[in-house]
Amino acid sequence: MKTSFIHEDFMLHNDAGKKLYHDFAKAMPIYDYHCHLSPKDIAENRSFSNLYEIWLEGDHYKWRAMRTFGVDEHFITGNATDKEKFEQWAKVVPHTVGNPLYHWTHMELKRYFNLDILLSEETSEEVWHHCNHLLEQEDFTTQQLLNRFKVEVVGTTDDPVDSLEHHITIKNSEAITTNVVPTFRPDKAVEISRPQFKEYIGKLGEAAKISIKEYEDVLTALEKRAQFFNEVGCRISDHGIENVPFEPCTYEEASRIFTKAWNGETISVQEEMKYKTYTLLYLGKLYASLGWAMQLHIGAIRNNNERMFETLGPDTGFDSIHDLPLAKSLNGFLNELDKQNELPKTILYHLNPIYNYVIGTAIGNFQGSGIKGKLQFGSGWWFNDQKDGMVKQMTDLANLGLLSSFIGMLTDSRSFLSYPRHEYFRRILCDLLGTWIEKGEVPNDEQLIGKMVQDISFTNAKNYFSIK
Amino acid sequence: MKTSFIHEDFMLHNDAGKKLYHDFAKAMPIYDYHCHLSPKDIAENRSFSNLYEIWLEGDHYKWRAMRTFGVDEHFITGNATDKEKFEQWAKVVPHTVGNPLYHWTHMELKRYFNLDILLSEETSEEVWHHCNHLLEQEDFTTQQLLNRFKVEVVGTTDDPVDSLEHHITIKNSEAITTNVVPTFRPDKAVEISRPQFKEYIGKLGEAAKISIKEYEDVLTALEKRAQFFNEVGCRISDHGIENVPFEPCTYEEASRIFTKAWNGETISVQEEMKYKTYTLLYLGKLYASLGWAMQLHIGAIRNNNERMFETLGPDTGFDSIHDLPLAKSLNGFLNELDKQNELPKTILYHLNPIYNYVIGTAIGNFQGSGIKGKLQFGSGWWFNDQKDGMVKQMTDLANLGLLSSFIGMLTDSRSFLSYPRHEYFRRILCDLLGTWIEKGEVPNDEQLIGKMVQDISFTNAKNYFSIK
Amino acid sequence: MKTSFIHEDFMLHNDAGKKLYHDFAKAMPIYDYHCHLSPKDIAENRSFSNLYEIWLEGDHYKWRAMRTFGVDEHFITGNATDKEKFEQWAKVVPHTVGNPLYHWTHMELKRYFNLDILLSEETSEEVWHHCNHLLEQEDFTTQQLLNRFKVEVVGTTDDPVDSLEHHITIKNSEAITTNVVPTFRPDKAVEISRPQFKEYIGKLGEAAKISIKEYEDVLTALEKRAQFFNEVGCRISDHGIENVPFEPCTYEEASRIFTKAWNGETISVQEEMKYKTYTLLYLGKLYASLGWAMQLHIGAIRNNNERMFETLGPDTGFDSIHDLPLAKSLNGFLNELDKQNELPKTILYHLNPIYNYVIGTAIGNFQGSGIKGKLQFGSGWWFNDQKDGMVKQMTDLANLGLLSSFIGMLTDSRSFLSYPRHEYFRRILCDLLGTWIEKGEVPNDEQLIGKMVQDISFTNAKNYFSIK
Repeated sequence: MKTSFIHEDFMLHNDAGKKLYHDFAKAMPIYDYHCHLSPKDIAENRSFSNLYEIWLEGDHYKWRAMRTFGVDEHFITGNATDKEKFEQWAKVVPHTVGNPLYHWTHMELKRYFNLDILLSEETSEEVWHHCNHLLEQEDFTTQQLLNRFKVEVVGTTDDPVDSLEHHITIKNSEAITTNVVPTFRPDKAVEISRPQFKEYIGKLGEAAKISIKEYEDVLTALEKRAQFFNEVGCRISDHGIENVPFEPCTYEEASRIFTKAWNGETISVQEEMKYKTYTLLYLGKLYASLGWAMQLHIGAIRNNNERMFETLGPDTGFDSIHDLPLAKSLNGFLNELDKQNELPKTILYHLNPIYNYVIGTAIGNFQGSGIKGKLQFGSGWWFNDQKDGMVKQMTDLANLGLLSSFIGMLTDSRSFLSYPRHEYFRRILCDLLGTWIEKGEVPNDEQLIGKMVQDISFTNAKNYFSIK
Repeated sequence: MKTSFIHEDFMLHNDAGKKLYHDFAKAMPIYDYHCHLSPKDIAENRSFSNLYEIWLEGDHYKWRAMRTFGVDEHFITGNATDKEKFEQWAKVVPHTVGNPLYHWTHMELKRYFNLDILLSEETSEEVWHHCNHLLEQEDFTTQQLLNRFKVEVVGTTDDPVDSLEHHITIKNSEAITTNVVPTFRPDKAVEISRPQFKEYIGKLGEAAKISIKEYEDVLTALEKRAQFFNEVGCRISDHGIENVPFEPCTYEEASRIFTKAWNGETISVQEEMKYKTYTLLYLGKLYASLGWAMQLHIGAIRNNNERMFETLGPDTGFDSIHDLPLAKSLNGFLNELDKQNELPKTILYHLNPIYNYVIGTAIGNFQGSGIKGKLQFGSGWWFNDQKDGMVKQMTDLANLGLLSSFIGMLTDSRSFLSYPRHEYFRRILCDLLGTWIEKGEVPNDEQLIGKMVQDISFTNAKNYFSIK
Repeated sequence: MKTSFIHEDFMLHNDAGKKLYHDFAKAMPIYDYHCHLSPKDIAENRSFSNLYEIWLEGDHYKWRAMRTFGVDEHFITGNATDKEKFEQWAKVVPHTVGNPLYHWTHMELKRYFNLDILLSEETSEEVWHHCNHLLEQEDFTTQQLLNRFKVEVVGTTDDPVDSLEHHITIKNSEAITTNVVPTFRPDKAVEISRPQFKEYIGKLGEAAKISIKEYEDVLTALEKRAQFFNEVGCRISDHGIENVPFEPCTYEEASRIFTKAWNGETISVQEEMKYKTYTLLYLGKLYASLGWAMQLHIGAIRNNNERMFETLGPDTGFDSIHDLPLAKSLNGFLNELDKQNELPKTILYHLNPIYNYVIGTAIGNFQGSGIKGKLQFGSGWWFNDQKDGMVKQMTDLANLGLLSSFIGMLTDSRSFLSYPRHEYFRRILCDLLGTWIEKGEVPNDEQLIGKMVQDISFTNAKNYFSIK
């Protein structure tokens, strides 16, 4: 009998790890505290018309692989039909071995569509028809997809100007059992040098019902929106930043800089950093007062390919990672908040794994306040969301801090088909701990290590966030 | 029976890997697209008078190891006899365990001289006589050495002012079956701040039969020489750069800066970066128009030891690696070329492995144009040309892009005894893929993975370059 | 029968490694050339009143773990009783699995107290009483602790103004068989921008019996103190520096900058770097003339948490790692000393492992002078003093230089209970070499590899330092 590629013990290479996974990890629900799912799709219980729509449309990870293989853009983001695009993807899949896409692809085909086939040019037709047929079933609405994977919490990513109408609909729906909460992501109010800044601040004022005249109004508007988000259930914020700003700045300076930008004047790089520092510190204190957790996603350089950006816009697969010094500004920023005890729970992610040790040691400087793992080194992000990246993040965290306090995995995904990534993470976690047990580097104590697995898979996150 | 150190399954630690190596990798010819072999030595079918001459003379890898062990410079680059120097090296060899030199040394003794002896003080005499005797045979001329290792292509490294006389001789020789092609390496025309710049530009003018008066003449001369190289078979360029210059610069600025240097005036660091940026971008476009591939070797700091530099000159073992931020300038540079679709096929090497993730993600921003793996992350270079460095480069590439599109190994060597490094690379590649197969992380599909091995060992490079 | 957690083959996962450890490493004495033990405690043959006092008091590694787990500061550095603090620590221990603290803790309980118990809330009471009872025995005086672990040499860390009275007492004592030598650490004379600089220079003058009027006096005072240290047996210096200063500076400039600081004027960052460069180079030459080894501990950012610093002061667990470019200044600094052949034996440590390759290649530029491994890449330091950090340091060193010349482990510890870290290091070293042997990557030559183990465990350090 041929064994499935995604078999029972996939990614589990030792007995201790198998036991940990099957007895402790597998049954835990999912706490997906950070993703990019559409609340509208959940509220409206969207269904999908074909495999391309639910799986490839908008997935820039796959697009990058296709481009690397030399596939013409016509079949990626161009005018080819859904089926033609899917066929091109199917053709590329066998050549992605070694890349997480290969594992994700087959886990998703197995877990959602019960398919034990390796996708390729040869199997493309069969997979297309099999899946499209299933997508017509009730099981494949967004709400059912979340239920089937026991997703207890979903933290979406939302702009402060968002009305949160879909979140309110979801909250009021009795049919929806998943707790879907918004995340406050005010990047556009922080990125003072972007051309859209002024227009955005106008919208922010409208959303907060405040006529913006000066910097103080911006801060008030952000605070009002945060309060509103808090009422709708938000307990987490998120920031995407190229590096951690830490350029000392008074309120008066920040005000003057804002006024310049508001009047359409050019802002210097130093002024930009000052404005960002003041504003982010202000927001950090706000989050602390609300009992929220703050997420910092550091080190992405976006839209590096101007030619493609002009055609396709952002989030289309032209992002990569930064390598600017981090240690001094990160420690300085956290210290500034901690000084008056206004440092919120904080989760740090960096796209460049060479900063693992900087982050792993910096969080140790600000732990405490009676919170287990108050400062967190977030799970392998984006390009690091693969076996080696996860193992490195967990090993580095273990060596420098306490792995047992880690709040674990999140999907960070736009796709309703990404939930097997939690399973993938747990298998890798159990395999790692199992290896340590088998080598005698960790005691063979099922209760101790089993509980640690459950904590990292679910319980730590549940206890860490104040989501009700 | 004692097993050889370099036995049949050397570096192969699992059955799948052994099968991949013996059934797929082993028989493939060698496509050595980047090395520093002397075309003169090939044209003249040089032979070597003793083991020192072919093996140690000019090998600064070995010199560094000898210095580290405390050997007096007299026995390294000094006046000791060839045999004395060889004996000192033999004494050091057992103490290089863990360093790639230990493996290279014994692979070279085995594959070229059929010796199954571990080199040491005790075996020094035997090895010296055995090898010197063989070196008198016809098998050990440069051309026969290339033939014996099935080297299909050799890409040497050549200065634009080079007459390529030896390449032309080789081209016209019926006896030479290896395709030996020049590589265009115009570093000396780019390094405007070096004391030899002016003198070099003079030579460049002579070679191109152009009287250099201004910057435009330099560009024309470079273009003429590139055309000439192209006629002789060149399809690859190469640049050695400390970091990637990306300081916006107009043609007029570059002209003015060149004129300053040409008049013997001092150039500021910023002017140097501007000149380099403009000139490299110009050359990049030129390569694109010729259908060439561009190699960038980034991050070496050379000649760090002034005292030894004054005695011995460059390339004597006093180089190390750089750690300046790369991401922004690399992406900016590639984008600038890509904007008007003038980005040539490009291979990026960095001497510092902490940039693996920057490079692995940056190349993904500029893939496409119907070329498989148009942007390449080059094989572990120099200090990274060892098992851990190769595994890291391939694993990182696999996680961030497509390992299957990789154009694989090159020797980068000055020595005719370095061809077992291709074997070494293939064994490591097969062992890595074999491990993945045995762990079930890659399907046990001999056709798929076997073809991938052949592609990376040879076929991808053959298809990638336009060498005829 | 239940196996001990710290069993005979702890950390040894292959037969070759077990043989290497038990037959070669285990019996070697300890050469602890760098630690922070109190010479007073040794001279006075101190004993300890309870387990908290000898084990937790002053151990900021443990404090960080406790804070991360959410323990209140009251039980860490606050007013809780010794026993209460110990109990809190015991509670945290099971949750440190994956961190070196877990291994260290149980090795220390086993090797010093012969305890085979895993520390936890449940076993806390038993461990406390068992150990406190033993601490009353003669075996647990500082001198006996050193004897029991066959510590042949202890290099403490001492300020140039120190009277070395305890070292002199130790030297003159017949009872003390360990060779306890001071290390010259003149950080306070180098850190010109610290508020305590002026006061410290005053003390330095007093110690040297020189009335400090100008920079020349400082240099003379340092030289006199170094001479004095040399007489008492010192053969090693040590410097803790955020980065390697290399800002060209004449004697006149350094003098002027010193005078500014001495007069209470503010020093710019560039002036600080100039002063540091000149002073460190001066000291480097001094060390070379004395035949000393120079240690550079690079890349710690200290006291990042101001709130806690104000309460607890330095060395309380709020330090982390730096990420500033290193390559250019490190090579420049070493070259400057080497130019006139005034580079002392030098050991480089960096707190950030991303610089392993910069260091591993930079040392290769300055080897020679007939000294085996004149330039050393120091053992995994502080946050890197754990299995992965050590394996990485040794593997990187092996790939880039000669592992066989490595001077090996040091405790860097304030605690008399840290000596099992040498055992831990040796087990990891033997496991690494054993893995290479079992994979056939290194010859299975017991004499060769066994001697290498002994060299790295002890003999290389003994030969490297000029300690009598």
